[in-house]
Amino acid sequence: MTEDKTLKAIQYQRGSLQILDQLKLPDISVYIPIQTVADAWKAIHTMSIRGAPAIAVCGVLSLAVDLHHSRSKFESIASVQQYVIDELNYLVTARPTAVNMTDAAKTIIDYLIPLSAKHQSIPEYIDELIAFIEQFLERDLADNRAIGRHGAEQIRLTTANPKKLTILTHCNTGSLATVGFGTALGVIRQLAANGDLQTAYFTETRPYNQGSRLTAYELVHDHIPHTMICDSMAGLLMRTQPVHGVVVGADRVTANGDTANKIGTYQLAILAKYHEIPFYVAAPTTSIDLTKRTGDEIVIEQRPSKEMTSIKGVNIAAEGVQVWNPAFDVTPAQLITGIITEHGVFKPDELEERLLALKNNKSS
Amino acid sequence: MTEDKTLKAIQYQRGSLQILDQLKLPDISVYIPIQTVADAWKAIHTMSIRGAPAIAVCGVLSLAVDLHHSRSKFESIASVQQYVIDELNYLVTARPTAVNMTDAAKTIIDYLIPLSAKHQSIPEYIDELIAFIEQFLERDLADNRAIGRHGAEQIRLTTANPKKLTILTHCNTGSLATVGFGTALGVIRQLAANGDLQTAYFTETRPYNQGSRLTAYELVHDHIPHTMICDSMAGLLMRTQPVHGVVVGADRVTANGDTANKIGTYQLAILAKYHEIPFYVAAPTTSIDLTKRTGDEIVIEQRPSKEMTSIKGVNIAAEGVQVWNPAFDVTPAQLITGIITEHGVFKPDELEERLLALKNNKSS
Repeated sequence: MTEDKTLKAIQYQRGSLQILDQLKLPDISVYIPIQTVADAWKAIHTMSIRGAPAIAVCGVLSLAVDLHHSRSKFESIASVQQYVIDELNYLVTARPTAVNMTDAAKTIIDYLIPLSAKHQSIPEYIDELIAFIEQFLERDLADNRAIGRHGAEQIRLTTANPKKLTILTHCNTGSLATVGFGTALGVIRQLAANGDLQTAYFTETRPYNQGSRLTAYELVHDHIPHTMICDSMAGLLMRTQPVHGVVVGADRVTANGDTANKIGTYQLAILAKYHEIPFYVAAPTTSIDLTKRTGDEIVIEQRPSKEMTSIKGVNIAAEGVQVWNPAFDVTPAQLITGIITEHGVFKPDELEERLLALKNNKSS
Repeated sequence: MTEDKTLKAIQYQRGSLQILDQLKLPDISVYIPIQTVADAWKAIHTMSIRGAPAIAVCGVLSLAVDLHHSRSKFESIASVQQYVIDELNYLVTARPTAVNMTDAAKTIIDYLIPLSAKHQSIPEYIDELIAFIEQFLERDLADNRAIGRHGAEQIRLTTANPKKLTILTHCNTGSLATVGFGTALGVIRQLAANGDLQTAYFTETRPYNQGSRLTAYELVHDHIPHTMICDSMAGLLMRTQPVHGVVVGADRVTANGDTANKIGTYQLAILAKYHEIPFYVAAPTTSIDLTKRTGDEIVIEQRPSKEMTSIKGVNIAAEGVQVWNPAFDVTPAQLITGIITEHGVFKPDELEERLLALKNNKSS
């Protein structure tokens, strides 16, 4: 399970970006070139790339590649700025629920305005902007490793007795959902690396099967002990098997700790509560949106019926059936034991205060 | 929605039995001839026919067909008896969780012993046995219609205010799971017939998709308003949409009211409790097993991995993935609002007493 052998959702070097086409996994492993912001928008929208952190990094890197190749077309720094702002605003629309892209866009826009004061040369300005954007790649990996460490430590310390632990997770939050290592799956990776993991249970995660396609692929690939269940089996699992914790990712966490994540997360949290199992959200602070007070303010994306009624182009439902297909749900903070971030594990009700304190420390 | 147009899982006339191959639905509608008890065992085991009541009726009717054609081979009434007992014991092994087949076998065996005292002619003995077995067909339909009436009335009377009701169900408990009309789906059919149904929500019911294949097929066929959800969406549905009741079927109900049913039922009951939604089990009294005190005594069938990792022969999971595939779970009585039988709706804790009273009335 060394670094080189882990899966990479994103391959980047200056001027060149490729993403692993997750629609084709696990059958075919093929990279798609992303040459423009429009390419990235399409890849995000069609879910060739998914996972809140990976979406954000893919989006901003597509802008870096775009800028690298189109540098000669700009006639002023102001026109570069306008172009970057327009493209970022466009990227945000590819999928509405995850906050990371919005957060990354804001970070870049906050950076590019003061930067213009330092530069008169358009190429130098663009180069510095590209270098800034490239930092998202490294930061995501470093954040995930920190999340893995904090999460594994927390679960180990708060679980009495048993030598090895079993964890249940949902969807895919691993190397394929991030730049590498993963968030919730990063916690599982770290427990495995520490010799603390008995088995990782994971749901197949209907309707898009990110569990059976992607998490299964990663865990088989990395030789991590695992057992897949259907989404309908989580209750029986918790009742009849030892489950020491549920760890899921997040598309957006609001100031009060409410968490939007893949559909099915909310009911896993209720089931965990009923069976007195700790329920953790693992997310980088870039997934935390302090501009929204509660989950009621989060827009939940509805996906096409076809994603429920067919798999690989094969119909799996009776013709003419009507469906409801929300892609996410919101888990209220009171069902969440802790939120595992790169800065440590916080209770939902201390999240905002602790994050603001971290921000103030950084800026002072 | 007249009688003639409803789906028939089982077509029978003396000497001839055919079942609708539910493995091929919803794509292809084809009947399989069942000429022997071995044919029925195989059809039940491979799930060409499923649903606890339909399994029992198919099983015993296969014996009736078998007896009809093999009447000349018996040399004594005792040899007929032994044959029938052996074949019934064999049928019970096809699927272990549902009790209806066991119950039907016991009823027939209880009947055939005293019957022998009345007969000296082997053909007459066999004819009377066949006629007795054929009653299972009519009785199942009559029981289901009574379940539908009692259930619809109960839900209508206990729901305040709204003109039309929304009900969530799981798996397939309709015409395809029974001789006709259905149990939980019979309640929904009755609500629809009464003009009381806003929409029937139903889960796709992974891993075998009885919801998306069979319930969807029935509801589309009968023009009943419906909305399919994934098993992972039940929590969000209950939180954000009006759901006036959850109604599910049963493979076996024990004396204390614990209920074995399709995997996923248990967690639906927890979710219903959490959202304060009434949770009903609809089952004929033939599904109630007073010989078992609690659900702990019920054998839960494990199904092959392949049923989780492929659909229609298409792989839907990463190669090499390990899975857990229990076919049923047990919902504890305390999560159940009421058990809807052909004799009325009973609270789990009054079930045994009321059934014993009914039995005593009948035999006295």
